[in-house]
Amino acid sequence: MADGGVLMRNEEGIQAALGVLKQQFGERFQTGHSIREQHGHTTTWIPNQMPDGVVFAKSTAEVSEIVKVCATHGVPIIAYGTGTSLEGHVNAPAGGISIDVSQMDSVLEVNAGDLDCRVQPGVTREALNTYLRDQGLFFPIDPGANASLGGMAATRASGTNAVRYGTMKDNVLSVEAVMADGSIIRTASRARKSSAGYDLTRLMVGSEGTLGIITEITLRLQGIPEAISAARCSFPSVEAASKTVMAVIQYGLPVARIELLDTLVVKALNNYSKLDLPEGPLLLLEFHGSEASVAEQAETFGMLAEEEGGTGYQATATLEERNKLWQARHDAYWAMLALRPGCKAVATDVCVPISRLAEAVTASEAKANELGLIAPVVGHAGDGNFHASLLLDMEDADEVAKAEHFVSWLNDMAISMDGTCTGEHGIGQGKRPYLIKELGADTIAVMGAIKKALDPQNIMNPGKILAD
Amino acid sequence: MADGGVLMRNEEGIQAALGVLKQQFGERFQTGHSIREQHGHTTTWIPNQMPDGVVFAKSTAEVSEIVKVCATHGVPIIAYGTGTSLEGHVNAPAGGISIDVSQMDSVLEVNAGDLDCRVQPGVTREALNTYLRDQGLFFPIDPGANASLGGMAATRASGTNAVRYGTMKDNVLSVEAVMADGSIIRTASRARKSSAGYDLTRLMVGSEGTLGIITEITLRLQGIPEAISAARCSFPSVEAASKTVMAVIQYGLPVARIELLDTLVVKALNNYSKLDLPEGPLLLLEFHGSEASVAEQAETFGMLAEEEGGTGYQATATLEERNKLWQARHDAYWAMLALRPGCKAVATDVCVPISRLAEAVTASEAKANELGLIAPVVGHAGDGNFHASLLLDMEDADEVAKAEHFVSWLNDMAISMDGTCTGEHGIGQGKRPYLIKELGADTIAVMGAIKKALDPQNIMNPGKILAD
Repeated sequence: MADGGVLMRNEEGIQAALGVLKQQFGERFQTGHSIREQHGHTTTWIPNQMPDGVVFAKSTAEVSEIVKVCATHGVPIIAYGTGTSLEGHVNAPAGGISIDVSQMDSVLEVNAGDLDCRVQPGVTREALNTYLRDQGLFFPIDPGANASLGGMAATRASGTNAVRYGTMKDNVLSVEAVMADGSIIRTASRARKSSAGYDLTRLMVGSEGTLGIITEITLRLQGIPEAISAARCSFPSVEAASKTVMAVIQYGLPVARIELLDTLVVKALNNYSKLDLPEGPLLLLEFHGSEASVAEQAETFGMLAEEEGGTGYQATATLEERNKLWQARHDAYWAMLALRPGCKAVATDVCVPISRLAEAVTASEAKANELGLIAPVVGHAGDGNFHASLLLDMEDADEVAKAEHFVSWLNDMAISMDGTCTGEHGIGQGKRPYLIKELGADTIAVMGAIKKALDPQNIMNPGKILAD
Repeated sequence: MADGGVLMRNEEGIQAALGVLKQQFGERFQTGHSIREQHGHTTTWIPNQMPDGVVFAKSTAEVSEIVKVCATHGVPIIAYGTGTSLEGHVNAPAGGISIDVSQMDSVLEVNAGDLDCRVQPGVTREALNTYLRDQGLFFPIDPGANASLGGMAATRASGTNAVRYGTMKDNVLSVEAVMADGSIIRTASRARKSSAGYDLTRLMVGSEGTLGIITEITLRLQGIPEAISAARCSFPSVEAASKTVMAVIQYGLPVARIELLDTLVVKALNNYSKLDLPEGPLLLLEFHGSEASVAEQAETFGMLAEEEGGTGYQATATLEERNKLWQARHDAYWAMLALRPGCKAVATDVCVPISRLAEAVTASEAKANELGLIAPVVGHAGDGNFHASLLLDMEDADEVAKAEHFVSWLNDMAISMDGTCTGEHGIGQGKRPYLIKELGADTIAVMGAIKKALDPQNIMNPGKILAD
């Protein structure tokens, strides 16, 4: 568990900025304890580190103003969307100002003919999809939580649909961002592809607010498929399920979702959601396409699964059955918590080459058992990304220490398999030591040089991604 | 036509570096006029600017050594693959050393189970596909020329398959690169997705050798589809063809290729390739998938095309017919040149939102007519990217001036449509003024800050992308 480390608090600057912002923003600038605590809140085990004040911004111009005030006084700035990040991204280890963009929640334009739209950062993915539904369009990235699109861009989020539709890096055409000096840049045009200079869009996507604050996002959209069907299939082992996933990917079957749930999660779901799934590793699938294509995909999957000993294969076509299946997947977090009432779930997020997925998941299960930890696994198997969620009694120091050991071991294993310590959650505070292990000091030095060039005062979300 | 501008030649440093490199590399270091001229050669109208010497590197370690020598003496370094770039990318406006990586041409590993491979930068796309064929795999990006994969990564290349498979930014998992101080970095693991810090992979892809030299590339691969078919369809107007393309994209039809050829190109092909295509705008298509899916795609396309007045729709299934059709597309460059023997073809490369494609292409044709220029159009229509190729008598100063006016007008038009001056060729020397128009001074300042941070001496391919 990383903390703010050696970051120094600039008390004088903070007090000066608080005064200016209070005057400029009145009631939209808040310094109450609970609101500050909530803006440092992260769904993780990293301790809360509150900002000194929270501004509710309503426009890009206001974000720029706020950044300029903070730049003048050398005060940290942390962007806040919905607070659903998982690695301490919104913590304020040296204090500073949280810019809450949740009121910047307008869909600015939808270009149906071009399958794109432009939104403010506070629009959530569910709000966008509700907005788009009447036009037959949808935005595919689904990280689970109803996150803000600004936050999703900032952490390079993905989720269950990434195997077919990619991650935020593939679905952001352009961003507008306020940089550390308050200047406002737009990274790209609305063209679907471009070779126009350095790819600042992709540099901002995943930069976790450390280079600038995303104030508008131009997104690629998809037409809602003619047909959608779901399916589930049980397997005798994680290895058999993983081999099936590999076969699916190699076959080029364009599955929209292919999710792995290990035996422990399946048991948890049976209890929590009153299901009677066979108690073994399970794959949940979704197929998108024309009626004929979806039927063919389902049939092909059945064939591939059978070769690996898959059983109880059920394809669903009705909306009701499909919703029930995916509701179960979405309930997995709550179902896991119910395995151990009062516990805290701490998510891990490794991603390995798919050929190593079975080995990695199996090793993760064995290691948790060896340590006496409960760590059920759900995985975006088509990408080789899985989450072993540690169900912890945070009062039990010995157990927390074991969990820290487990996380360290798991990240090291993924790195040793030429994988990553984070498939989609980001580095934040929690994974900084692993980033160095993963990419090496020379690569991190390049990241550090970019950070220093674009934010020489280190005021943009300091203490995240890079060492202090 | 840009030239080296105010870049200063460091004569003393260059002479010192020449001496050291001659000693270190012997026969693999060349300073003959013709070899230097060839390494400054670019398939464009930008004048040749030769490097002072050419080193044929054989390993990453050697590239690092060469960069260190050049860094010590403050001498420019320009990477060279196959010399097929189109915007003066390999020119040496202030002299310096060309590092020819064409002998770094090994496929280092293929991970069939993970659908990825790792290659040296001198491997060409055709060589890679030949290497992969027996394993049932292919690398989809096809920019036309048999370019090196290092060069394709450096310019963020794409081509005919991008509508389905994306561009180099979507198909490079990771690169190894030698930076301006000779340090060697690797930008990412082999995981299919990652949120591990700044996306240095995407920063290097499209950086045109100005930030570092790509020495290894880890690429995503695809399984060769079960079935491939091709088709062609003629239209009464560019507008009707473009509307069909929009319908295809909105429908979500997963076409692998959808190419637009205007009437002038079709006429040229009829002459050059002895075909009898109807003399009007033409769409060429390719469908990938299962037998049933390919048949369904072809049928759906036929339906969409008919609604826009498409005629002469012919789907092909045999390899021979398909090859004939795509051979014609590949011959388009030569067919266009034959329209005006002795001319030089100068490619443009704008990309606009698809909803503006018809308007942009029609305006381009009208503008060329108005100026008395011959500028046939081929387009990667599914991406809104098209090339009007100016067929010029380079001895005719008046015509060249008109062509410069045309290029400027075309780029400005694309930018005014929220498109880009370069969909896939890159900025190089030729498009630097348009990059500023497209993205604005503040955005270019961010690019400049990154360049300065990573290459403080401005020795990595100076005079490209950014102003001198």
